[in-house]
Amino acid sequence: MDIADRVLHGDAQAIARAITLAEQQGAEARGLIARLHEHTGNAKIVGLTGAPGVGKSTLLSQLVKAWRFESSKVGVIAVDPTSPFTGGAILGDRIRLQEHASDAGVFVRSMATRGYLGGLAPAVQDAVVVFDAAGIDIVAIETVGVGQAEVDVSRTADACVVITVPGTGDDVQAIKAGVMEIADIFVVNKSDRDGADRAAGQIEAMLTLRSTDDDTPRPPVIKVSASLGHGIDGLVAGLKELLARDKFRTNRARIRAQARLEAVLRREVSLEIEKIASLDEVVDRIAALEVDPYTAAYDMLNKVLRGRRGNES
Amino acid sequence: MDIADRVLHGDAQAIARAITLAEQQGAEARGLIARLHEHTGNAKIVGLTGAPGVGKSTLLSQLVKAWRFESSKVGVIAVDPTSPFTGGAILGDRIRLQEHASDAGVFVRSMATRGYLGGLAPAVQDAVVVFDAAGIDIVAIETVGVGQAEVDVSRTADACVVITVPGTGDDVQAIKAGVMEIADIFVVNKSDRDGADRAAGQIEAMLTLRSTDDDTPRPPVIKVSASLGHGIDGLVAGLKELLARDKFRTNRARIRAQARLEAVLRREVSLEIEKIASLDEVVDRIAALEVDPYTAAYDMLNKVLRGRRGNES
Repeated sequence: MDIADRVLHGDAQAIARAITLAEQQGAEARGLIARLHEHTGNAKIVGLTGAPGVGKSTLLSQLVKAWRFESSKVGVIAVDPTSPFTGGAILGDRIRLQEHASDAGVFVRSMATRGYLGGLAPAVQDAVVVFDAAGIDIVAIETVGVGQAEVDVSRTADACVVITVPGTGDDVQAIKAGVMEIADIFVVNKSDRDGADRAAGQIEAMLTLRSTDDDTPRPPVIKVSASLGHGIDGLVAGLKELLARDKFRTNRARIRAQARLEAVLRREVSLEIEKIASLDEVVDRIAALEVDPYTAAYDMLNKVLRGRRGNES
Repeated sequence: MDIADRVLHGDAQAIARAITLAEQQGAEARGLIARLHEHTGNAKIVGLTGAPGVGKSTLLSQLVKAWRFESSKVGVIAVDPTSPFTGGAILGDRIRLQEHASDAGVFVRSMATRGYLGGLAPAVQDAVVVFDAAGIDIVAIETVGVGQAEVDVSRTADACVVITVPGTGDDVQAIKAGVMEIADIFVVNKSDRDGADRAAGQIEAMLTLRSTDDDTPRPPVIKVSASLGHGIDGLVAGLKELLARDKFRTNRARIRAQARLEAVLRREVSLEIEKIASLDEVVDRIAALEVDPYTAAYDMLNKVLRGRRGNES
């Protein structure tokens, strides 16, 4: 059996190896993912995002426990650089989240937020493909709630949970500025603290401004205390209800397909660009103020795209 | 006088208008920036980055005060979505940082972290060009310390200040995972708190692992309490010393030239990709598992790049 066959049989070592290949994004990974692609579509993909300190990892640990209680196989991809989910049953080198470390039904993989050519998205998306093809039922992706990576991940997930905590108005401002659009469920964690009702109310007030339709219902706002274990059942039930909607998941599968196509295209084109943008002579001329970057870039693109822009320059 | 001439004369309204054009990244901006480019190179560009809550804005406010005391004209670009630097003398619609609001020598502009085709980098870089060409002496760029935006900004700046606070080992872990490489100066803010010496010591210990040479000296670690005004003089002096090194700034100008060229190339190619990646038929086939994203992407690239990849597929 080759590695693709072994992944399809749920072999833990093969899963680990396949995700390492996905991280490297080389030719071997492309062939592997291309083969696994047709065996995907069963896993439910949940994104969890929120700023450092909102308790994402504690919440995720509680969710993993709940999902395992229902006998689902769970895969975790920790993109958050502060996540303690950096080890796990078989896939990691460090185990800090002891609770699930000995559970053969939990697969944990951390992925760095930097150093990927063309961004993190293709590597994470390919890791999801590996988990999905291997028969994992639920794939959770944990990210820090700032930046392009979260938007990419939200387009990869079937459902995206945005986590916040009671605090100042600035927190809600930050949500407004960014992640409002990507949330399918809001969680106010640490809701044993003062101000939880107010925070939930503020989010709900902002949500009334968002347009809804039958396919994308207004996101619920769920108060949780992950460390005390309060409210987890409600969150699990909310996720389950959302993911049971066929039309919702069909829409998401289409968004995910487009996100993956874009990610691969971007990565490949980035490689082309890095080749041409490192041309010393051109960079020297820009630094010496002899040519501006726009003029230099269009000249280069004319060469790469062979005259497709000829009528614009 | 057209807008470029007015920017070169330091006209505040023209600066505001030019940055709005830079944000929109249309044809008018390209022409404007191409014209302003040769008039740049005088401003010193300082990046400030750190997680939400480390007190970036308070520190920046203190730095602005110190720079103004030396009669430098200061431009602030606030990329951090939680920054109170969202107004300013003449450029913004909201004024929350009252201290500098009535100072005609301080120009403040906030820029959103999302919604830019091809990323935030080109818009921020062009805003820096506008400030520089307009005779601003110091341009400070404030970002949240996570994600690709910070790497892009660090490549745009002459000097990058990474701000942290005393806390748990996890904070230092987060620095290690990401921004270690981009820091020219470390600031431990809120150093009136317990653990400041320990935090500074941990950062210094990590820095001993980093290779140095004459052009890039080991980053100093400076303890500051921005809210009490302690340590600001040392930070200002450290920045001044760094920015006075000709070789250091020459190297940075070259890195910035390459970053700008890359950003423009990426943005333009992103526009091309968005056109082709939204092709419904291809996305439908990927979602239906009929074709994998890699095969689909290479087919498309073959068309865009006209056979340049013909020998690979």
